[in-house]
Amino acid sequence: MSVPHPLDALTVNEIKRASDIVLNARGNALIEFRSISLEEPPKAQLQPFFELEAQGKLTYQTPRPARQASIKYDVVCEDRSRDYMESLVDVNTGKETKHRVVDKRHQPSLTLEEFEAFQDACTASQLFKDELAKYKLPEGFVVTIDPWPYGGPDPGEIYPRYTQGLCFARDARNGNPDSNHYGYPLPMIPVMDTYKQEIVRIDKLATGGTEDGLRYDTTQRNILDHCAPAEYVPELLEGGLRTDLKPLNVIQPEGPSFKVSDESVVEWQKWRFRVGFNPREGATLHDIRYDGRSVLYRLSISEMTVPYGDPRPPFHRKQAFDFGDAGAGRAANNLELGCDCLGLIKYFDAVMVDTSGAPSVSKNVICLHEQDNGIGWKHTNYRTNRAVVTRYRELVIQFIITLANYEYIFMYKFDQAGGIDIETRATGIVSVVNIDPGKTSPWGNVVSPGALAQNHQHVFCLRIDPAIDGPRNTILKEESLPIPMTPELNPFGNGYEVRRTPITRSSFLDASPQTNRVIKMINPHKLNPISGRPIGYKFTPTASQLLLAHPDSIQAKRAQFAQHHVWITKHRDGEFWAGGEFTNQSQAEVDGVADAVARDENVQDDDVVVWNVFGLTHNPRVEDWPVMPMESHSVHLRPVDFFTRNPAIDVPGSKNLSSVLAPGSKQGDGSSCCSGKVQSQPTSHGQGQGELKPQDGTHKL
Amino acid sequence: MSVPHPLDALTVNEIKRASDIVLNARGNALIEFRSISLEEPPKAQLQPFFELEAQGKLTYQTPRPARQASIKYDVVCEDRSRDYMESLVDVNTGKETKHRVVDKRHQPSLTLEEFEAFQDACTASQLFKDELAKYKLPEGFVVTIDPWPYGGPDPGEIYPRYTQGLCFARDARNGNPDSNHYGYPLPMIPVMDTYKQEIVRIDKLATGGTEDGLRYDTTQRNILDHCAPAEYVPELLEGGLRTDLKPLNVIQPEGPSFKVSDESVVEWQKWRFRVGFNPREGATLHDIRYDGRSVLYRLSISEMTVPYGDPRPPFHRKQAFDFGDAGAGRAANNLELGCDCLGLIKYFDAVMVDTSGAPSVSKNVICLHEQDNGIGWKHTNYRTNRAVVTRYRELVIQFIITLANYEYIFMYKFDQAGGIDIETRATGIVSVVNIDPGKTSPWGNVVSPGALAQNHQHVFCLRIDPAIDGPRNTILKEESLPIPMTPELNPFGNGYEVRRTPITRSSFLDASPQTNRVIKMINPHKLNPISGRPIGYKFTPTASQLLLAHPDSIQAKRAQFAQHHVWITKHRDGEFWAGGEFTNQSQAEVDGVADAVARDENVQDDDVVVWNVFGLTHNPRVEDWPVMPMESHSVHLRPVDFFTRNPAIDVPGSKNLSSVLAPGSKQGDGSSCCSGKVQSQPTSHGQGQGELKPQDGTHKL
Repeated sequence: MSVPHPLDALTVNEIKRASDIVLNARGNALIEFRSISLEEPPKAQLQPFFELEAQGKLTYQTPRPARQASIKYDVVCEDRSRDYMESLVDVNTGKETKHRVVDKRHQPSLTLEEFEAFQDACTASQLFKDELAKYKLPEGFVVTIDPWPYGGPDPGEIYPRYTQGLCFARDARNGNPDSNHYGYPLPMIPVMDTYKQEIVRIDKLATGGTEDGLRYDTTQRNILDHCAPAEYVPELLEGGLRTDLKPLNVIQPEGPSFKVSDESVVEWQKWRFRVGFNPREGATLHDIRYDGRSVLYRLSISEMTVPYGDPRPPFHRKQAFDFGDAGAGRAANNLELGCDCLGLIKYFDAVMVDTSGAPSVSKNVICLHEQDNGIGWKHTNYRTNRAVVTRYRELVIQFIITLANYEYIFMYKFDQAGGIDIETRATGIVSVVNIDPGKTSPWGNVVSPGALAQNHQHVFCLRIDPAIDGPRNTILKEESLPIPMTPELNPFGNGYEVRRTPITRSSFLDASPQTNRVIKMINPHKLNPISGRPIGYKFTPTASQLLLAHPDSIQAKRAQFAQHHVWITKHRDGEFWAGGEFTNQSQAEVDGVADAVARDENVQDDDVVVWNVFGLTHNPRVEDWPVMPMESHSVHLRPVDFFTRNPAIDVPGSKNLSSVLAPGSKQGDGSSCCSGKVQSQPTSHGQGQGELKPQDGTHKL
Repeated sequence: MSVPHPLDALTVNEIKRASDIVLNARGNALIEFRSISLEEPPKAQLQPFFELEAQGKLTYQTPRPARQASIKYDVVCEDRSRDYMESLVDVNTGKETKHRVVDKRHQPSLTLEEFEAFQDACTASQLFKDELAKYKLPEGFVVTIDPWPYGGPDPGEIYPRYTQGLCFARDARNGNPDSNHYGYPLPMIPVMDTYKQEIVRIDKLATGGTEDGLRYDTTQRNILDHCAPAEYVPELLEGGLRTDLKPLNVIQPEGPSFKVSDESVVEWQKWRFRVGFNPREGATLHDIRYDGRSVLYRLSISEMTVPYGDPRPPFHRKQAFDFGDAGAGRAANNLELGCDCLGLIKYFDAVMVDTSGAPSVSKNVICLHEQDNGIGWKHTNYRTNRAVVTRYRELVIQFIITLANYEYIFMYKFDQAGGIDIETRATGIVSVVNIDPGKTSPWGNVVSPGALAQNHQHVFCLRIDPAIDGPRNTILKEESLPIPMTPELNPFGNGYEVRRTPITRSSFLDASPQTNRVIKMINPHKLNPISGRPIGYKFTPTASQLLLAHPDSIQAKRAQFAQHHVWITKHRDGEFWAGGEFTNQSQAEVDGVADAVARDENVQDDDVVVWNVFGLTHNPRVEDWPVMPMESHSVHLRPVDFFTRNPAIDVPGSKNLSSVLAPGSKQGDGSSCCSGKVQSQPTSHGQGQGELKPQDGTHKL
């Protein structure tokens, strides 16, 4: 049907129409657009629509939610200040349905244009030139600046929109623009008044070590002379590339097992879901169903924060919120065939807008492919020596973001046993600052001469909106606990109790591996016909370290979400962001998940949302330089009494015929097999070794 | 050279010679062999040998440790009792160098012969027949018994070697010996005097539910009438196999990147190590080096225990030690091409002996292959839009064991960034007992009608014998900790401290994710030239739940090792087993890792061994039936300042040419690439977008 699905991304024409509506509504104002994207319809309308869709009952007559565009933009004033506004417009009726002038204490996320302006502002700044002049850069080096969000303001500080810049120098003598500048950090951070595009201040950076105070200022002026190249592009790499790695190809001769229809509907191995994409979250998944049964209403990465643990000012302002400050969708890589995944790949594009509101297609921001992850299940009947073994095939929806020096890889992975994994990989280049020759520091590790990689944390928040076979769910905290060793309860002391506690009010809780704490999302109205227990999905929250910053610090105030592993809230439309809508230059988390919990609402047998926080305390190693090997984390969502057997039990265990012996190997008479061959003969009429025929026993007596 | 390496497995001839020596030494005694395998030479001899080997200095003249066989055997007495003995013999000199008659309070592990005897003993037992007769088995069913280790004896119980049997019935009407008997559990456990091969007792099992007491005895005699089939072999599977999974083949057109020489030496991507195999531990790795530098002296899975949490007697005796009670090597599957891994596979065989001492080759007990694990590292220079991305290639050494109903998959995985992962996967069929119709139980989950899968734990112990660039190492406990928010120390509250504490005496400690506790194995004598810190390897102990059984329970006494996450001991030759040498029917852990720690020895700058305990509390789901989807756990050993850069930085990022677009996709002008193409033109002479040329700044002033 040609009627768009309520979750279809805005088309180029709809975007144009949306920008026109806003331009008209604001009269003659000078407008710079930040983003134009689909406003997801209210759940009260979308959920029943999904149900009809799942039942195959959609028709042209089915009522559809209004198709609305969410438009974020600046109205540029004559004094170069700006009013940041948000509008909703109905692209069919042409009406502006909502208009909000955002309070100036909130700052929207950074744009590419603001990034680019930073360099120009430095070029034009005498302040910057004077400071830079103090350092004797080696001949042939150029200054390269990574603009960053300003981070949290100092207490009591009131000021306009700022951007800060981390400064490096690049060896331009080799003529290669990809020569790595991060090996040459400069001890200065220019601060720009973002709207005026003026450098207002230069913060000097301490370059001392363990023996120096927090505010030590280097006396060395040949500031890069002790630094070293940090090349990673192959043509500049010291020692060249290794030559002994043979190709490993993934071939799918009969095509993929997945099917993509209507641009964004993915079907694979009884799974069906819809892929969305927006500038803030990147890829989102909607209406995830297995065999037609609803599992999740929506799945997304909500936020992350990266606070740095170097107490020397102004490093306390190194705290990025990569989703709120920059936008994972805006930072998404355009992926290329053969680089970011193997096998048969399906790519998804997105439509972005520039400041004029003009739409353009960003190619390949998401990729979809299958992969093999080893053995899925296996059992050998030792009596007959017959093995049945199946592979663990996964479907992967991947997107990758680059934020200046750093990259994150996000994957939603589906398996054949009803499981969903959410994997994050951290890679890219760790953030370094200059350190004097020969010194070491308690605040990081010297990963390259003169380059101190500062200790930091990455704290992610995953947003899970469950719909376990229906919209009303309950969250259980399940723990495995010792029981007293008494003759009545536990005579030999081996018994343990599994205690399940429903969460009744919106709240937070932490991981508790010592009690095997598991979070179960159940449908209390539907019992598994075999176990008699409610159907559900579960995950075990990882007990990763939570935010280390002092509770009174601005870092902590801005990232309430990073202080507990699990948050349980009552659903509200549009409440997608764990750290609040506005994280850039924020003083505190506003309308984030902590505020949602503070509403103290019922969440039992209700429309509930689960937020899972996990992370990584990253105290860098020399091995993380110049580009760090990925560090991975996975959340495992698993069915628990949702099905009536292992859903993967019907995965064929047929032999992979393309596997071959390594040269020099002989295939022995391996007696185990996945294809169904019986190696040992049973003794008689279907009787295996080590069994009693009825006549052996006397059970007929 | 034809001189065997000190770690070469015993040859068939050496085994024959070893058994002859023992037979001669014991005179005319009737001997039944349990195992004959290489006795690893003392470290004091082997370590210097490894060093010479690594330096390429081995010659025919190099002194070699004595080649000794470790022989375990029973001397069968006339009254059918047995004396269990252990001998060491020098296969070159023909001398018996050690002979030990083991105290009768210790029981060696179970043998296949003992397994097979169980069924015969039941067939011959009137006790068994009488008990079985009480239950009306459906027509056409046969009784099938899984022999198990007896578990821990009850307090004060003194008795000979026992074996217990879990009883099931198999539907033999379909004529298929692989029809799954586990769906039909019988509520009786016969206990066999193992040496007399007589059933001495039948324990009756409670079949009640939540509402019944611990000692409830069923009144139902048609005990299987409410049970259901649990088929998993494809020809019996209800609903048949899924048909929509397309093949995914791994093709390595230029062959593997690994090389195997001298039967057991593996070289891959700068790694070199030796693969061993023994009846107890399965695959072991020795002398693991990267680029010639020693990393680990030895790596092995030491032990695991699987205690069941159902307090109803006699289920407290369901506690398996799969390495000590059975032997991972003896239980190893014979793997088959195309079933257990994809791509180019190298298999390793092992030589086993029967009770007469006759050797025979067990084929394909270990497999070796490469696999792709997604992106290894990536960075996009946002100025030029050039991405460099490499794959994460792994080398996998895998073995799989079957213990009656259950399987474990063990993998040692090497990567290109100096990392070693140890992955365990649990799969197979969960252990079930009969439960009355319509009941549920606090002690497990009804996974199939009439079949209660009992709650249990799996607790593994990995043994790491580090040799971080030399034999003398120190273990550090590293934690990331908050620091007070004071103007002097931490003015803005963002700072945190990384505290490193050397472990001085043999000791245990637990995982502590809230402090990001990391275990570092360092060489205190060698500093990384860049960071100035000692070179090392690290891992983060997983905070999995430790043993739940009451400290006074026999389950807990037998498994001291399962009560802490990390044990640090001073190396002793032959001290390989976390739960002690004798776990079968043990009353307590004897000479296990807890006793080793209790020696209170120096471990700082010494020959130290690290034991890592991790596990899984498994409260079964219906989805775990009839064969459970694998549950995986990984330990990540990672270099920390061992190298001077990311060792994988030289992995070629060249484009995989075999990847193709899924049908219906169009390849866009994806602007990111791994092959080195620069998408955006730099502005001039090697200057990227957003950089300042020297003339822009004034640093020459």
